[in-house]
Amino acid sequence: MGAGGSKKIIPSGLKHCTLWKADRSPPCRAVMMTLDAMNLSITEVDVNMDKGEHRSPELTILNPLQTLPVFKDRELVLNDSHAISIYLAKRYHNTGRLLPKDPGGNSLIEQLLHFDSGILYPRYRAAANPVLYENCNFVMPQHVSDIESAYCDLEHMLVGKTWLGGNWPTLGDISIVATVSTLNVLVPIDQNRYPRLTSWLHRMSEEIYYITANKTGLGEFSRRIGELSEVN
Amino acid sequence: MGAGGSKKIIPSGLKHCTLWKADRSPPCRAVMMTLDAMNLSITEVDVNMDKGEHRSPELTILNPLQTLPVFKDRELVLNDSHAISIYLAKRYHNTGRLLPKDPGGNSLIEQLLHFDSGILYPRYRAAANPVLYENCNFVMPQHVSDIESAYCDLEHMLVGKTWLGGNWPTLGDISIVATVSTLNVLVPIDQNRYPRLTSWLHRMSEEIYYITANKTGLGEFSRRIGELSEVN
Repeated sequence: MGAGGSKKIIPSGLKHCTLWKADRSPPCRAVMMTLDAMNLSITEVDVNMDKGEHRSPELTILNPLQTLPVFKDRELVLNDSHAISIYLAKRYHNTGRLLPKDPGGNSLIEQLLHFDSGILYPRYRAAANPVLYENCNFVMPQHVSDIESAYCDLEHMLVGKTWLGGNWPTLGDISIVATVSTLNVLVPIDQNRYPRLTSWLHRMSEEIYYITANKTGLGEFSRRIGELSEVN
Repeated sequence: MGAGGSKKIIPSGLKHCTLWKADRSPPCRAVMMTLDAMNLSITEVDVNMDKGEHRSPELTILNPLQTLPVFKDRELVLNDSHAISIYLAKRYHNTGRLLPKDPGGNSLIEQLLHFDSGILYPRYRAAANPVLYENCNFVMPQHVSDIESAYCDLEHMLVGKTWLGGNWPTLGDISIVATVSTLNVLVPIDQNRYPRLTSWLHRMSEEIYYITANKTGLGEFSRRIGELSEVN
């Protein structure tokens, strides 16, 4: 594990907060984009998943589930990317811009985060894990179909909308783009079938935090998938 | 579809809020328990999933995903049980008891809700759907193994704790018990391997809202699984 360079030092200084992360992982990138969208700088530690560092005793004590990301702010330890992003918004960026304060607006963003948790991410994991860890060099037909069905849901959710959650990008867009940009590597989004989703992904890819915090890890994931496909 | 009887009439009167639900469905029961835990009474509409009523034009307009529950409060429409419960807590029961107001306490409950969304519920659906809809009369070994692994995670999460989220049951316990009590029908929880989880489930089953809002639907699910196993 190596301490990653903090991108910005700001007066409020959140170096007492630590994020253990791997750039390849979509939920880690969701938290990294959230931090950059809030202009917050915390201590970041790169964890090499191929060497099993996420299962080290140090991290297992913090997170018995042995998943990434892991976040620590003094006594508080969190391991779910959505809970981490909500915490950062409420504790350190309470403007209501990324996570509305009114119960109705807030609940619509919470719903997007649960769509990511409950639909998108499990389908990502089901499709990616056989390629990453089980010597499979293609995405299985059932998994392609499940991912296409999720694209179809997103296309519906974008009817009449520029962003998924409101008049500007919110935590909902950020979490979902971390997963969808990665799914797009495994099952490319057909722009004829999903024109709204294609446009939304293009718009999100132009946001500064996408460029600073998603692009590198997404490229790393993409190369890794390419290498494994060649080897097998 | 038939209008279900509201259980309590309270002065604040939330009859302008409507919940479309099926008692058999774990996320519907999570919202019903949340309402009873908050002593809130809203308009409830029973939807017969076997007759495909959740795919009716009326409900599809409200929820293109064609899932249950569906919740409506004037212009606001939600279809994710966790987002509905968070909304109800923030809008109509803002005591902090079921969902803490401080960012740290709040994030720990959000994390439990995402564990339900991202781990428990997808594993429930993967195990139950072949039995409910695909003429399969047993839970497939891979699905049993995934559910056992989730029980193992919960057993870890309960070390040193009476409740999952704090010193009393919160929205985290309520959402998770709706799913876990149903998983327990499909893959019975071994009390020797999971003593803490067994005790927690027993404690939760004694909460009044579990008795009023989970027991009937759970029994219906259990009978349905029994019938399908006999027929096949």
